[in-house]
Amino acid sequence: MKVISNQRMFGGEQLRIEHPSESLQCVMRFSVFMPHGLSSQNPVPVLYWLSGLTCSDENFSTKAGAQRVAAELGIALVIADTSPRGAAVPDDDSYDMGQGAGFYVNATQAPWKAHYRMYDYIAHELPQFVATHLPVNANKAISGHSMGGHGALTIAIKNPAQYTSVSAFAPIVNPMACLWGQKALARYLGDDRSEWAQYDSVELIKEHGLSLPLLVDQGTADEFLAEQLLTENLATVLSEKTDADIRFQSGYDHSYYFIATFIEEHIRFHAKYLLA
Amino acid sequence: MKVISNQRMFGGEQLRIEHPSESLQCVMRFSVFMPHGLSSQNPVPVLYWLSGLTCSDENFSTKAGAQRVAAELGIALVIADTSPRGAAVPDDDSYDMGQGAGFYVNATQAPWKAHYRMYDYIAHELPQFVATHLPVNANKAISGHSMGGHGALTIAIKNPAQYTSVSAFAPIVNPMACLWGQKALARYLGDDRSEWAQYDSVELIKEHGLSLPLLVDQGTADEFLAEQLLTENLATVLSEKTDADIRFQSGYDHSYYFIATFIEEHIRFHAKYLLA
Repeated sequence: MKVISNQRMFGGEQLRIEHPSESLQCVMRFSVFMPHGLSSQNPVPVLYWLSGLTCSDENFSTKAGAQRVAAELGIALVIADTSPRGAAVPDDDSYDMGQGAGFYVNATQAPWKAHYRMYDYIAHELPQFVATHLPVNANKAISGHSMGGHGALTIAIKNPAQYTSVSAFAPIVNPMACLWGQKALARYLGDDRSEWAQYDSVELIKEHGLSLPLLVDQGTADEFLAEQLLTENLATVLSEKTDADIRFQSGYDHSYYFIATFIEEHIRFHAKYLLA
Repeated sequence: MKVISNQRMFGGEQLRIEHPSESLQCVMRFSVFMPHGLSSQNPVPVLYWLSGLTCSDENFSTKAGAQRVAAELGIALVIADTSPRGAAVPDDDSYDMGQGAGFYVNATQAPWKAHYRMYDYIAHELPQFVATHLPVNANKAISGHSMGGHGALTIAIKNPAQYTSVSAFAPIVNPMACLWGQKALARYLGDDRSEWAQYDSVELIKEHGLSLPLLVDQGTADEFLAEQLLTENLATVLSEKTDADIRFQSGYDHSYYFIATFIEEHIRFHAKYLLA
């Protein structure tokens, strides 16, 4: 592993790390905030963050203001990139396919399938890498925004023993029913819609239920709410017995100003389980 | 005035506002956070923020995390641009002259003097505009980063009755003695160094003293400390009777991660005077 940058923040270290990825067959970067520093002997739990379309690992690091509370509580933040990267990795001219738009799936179709295995990378390879190289303990939670909220939800629903808790900001909850999801799933997975269902939170909860605590914040002024995010479809499939809180925040949009406003509540939500 | 964008944040409103500037002879934009909203009947004090080289009004708005504490305390944030802007405004190929690099002076030399009057804009025109159009009271403080820290210090030292308090992150305290300052002051003001002294914090304090409370944070790992910022020169000219606190923060660099770490302490410092 190669530390590209290391900057002090809130008494801890904000790092960018580069490593070759086996799942993605390319060199990847991720950002991490270590509240007690990289060389600490004090292992801490990790909150994984997955970003949205067009983002890299840097949007959340620079704009969300999450490190303050993570430092206070002693929680590491691992902030992933949103797709495989590099000149050898297939790309697309549109912002919602290819690099920056991996949708956290394992692609099965050409030309994507050689590199676009973001599900494996986030669910398996990255946590393994982090556990091997950074002073963390076994407790993990996961959160994300928009496409990254979709990634956090689907990965947590399918791997409930791996995470203490899951949360999301403005997630794409039902990609099979919106244009962003239909385009990406058709091109990464082919035309068989039964393949798509394994990456659709609403369909996964219908089939498997939800067995870990969930918090979702959705702004009512979000320009993507009605056509792409479909938050009501998630609320509909959650049973009353589920430990899930879906909150509509009046007047908030899809931006990092919305995330910055509520990130403290998300980190404190996860801390109840990560530090238990 | 034209509201370009308005986004909810921490229960308030984060706005970008466009207006024609008389001082600068161009259309300017600034950002503002109004803790109780634009149409509030509850006037609040204002903390002005001046940014560094290459920045616009958006860097601090998106990266510093200042709105949380401003919302809690009921303080507006007005975040200025760093120079006149537009195709008709003279520019320079280097990052440290021209657009993005106004240095908060009134230029006297061609081709700069028709537009580059950032001192007048920040010290007089912008506060007048804000007082006329936004629900603010008469209390004002000022802060900034790097070139903007230089701007905040010089403007406050020269107009102590106008501000309750001044603070800065990694300010250029003695521009006459560093390359950034020597280049900008020579080109904006000409070769007469006596003209430069009116925009040099160290020289101004030698001449006028310092008659308002001051807080400065400077990272010890800041790559510009030794050659451009010269913080020790400021500490040297401050008398023991002055209400000034110059803090060296171990291991912090010149970035917004440093600002984000200490902005809460700066806002609470100003709040003691703004809300008194």
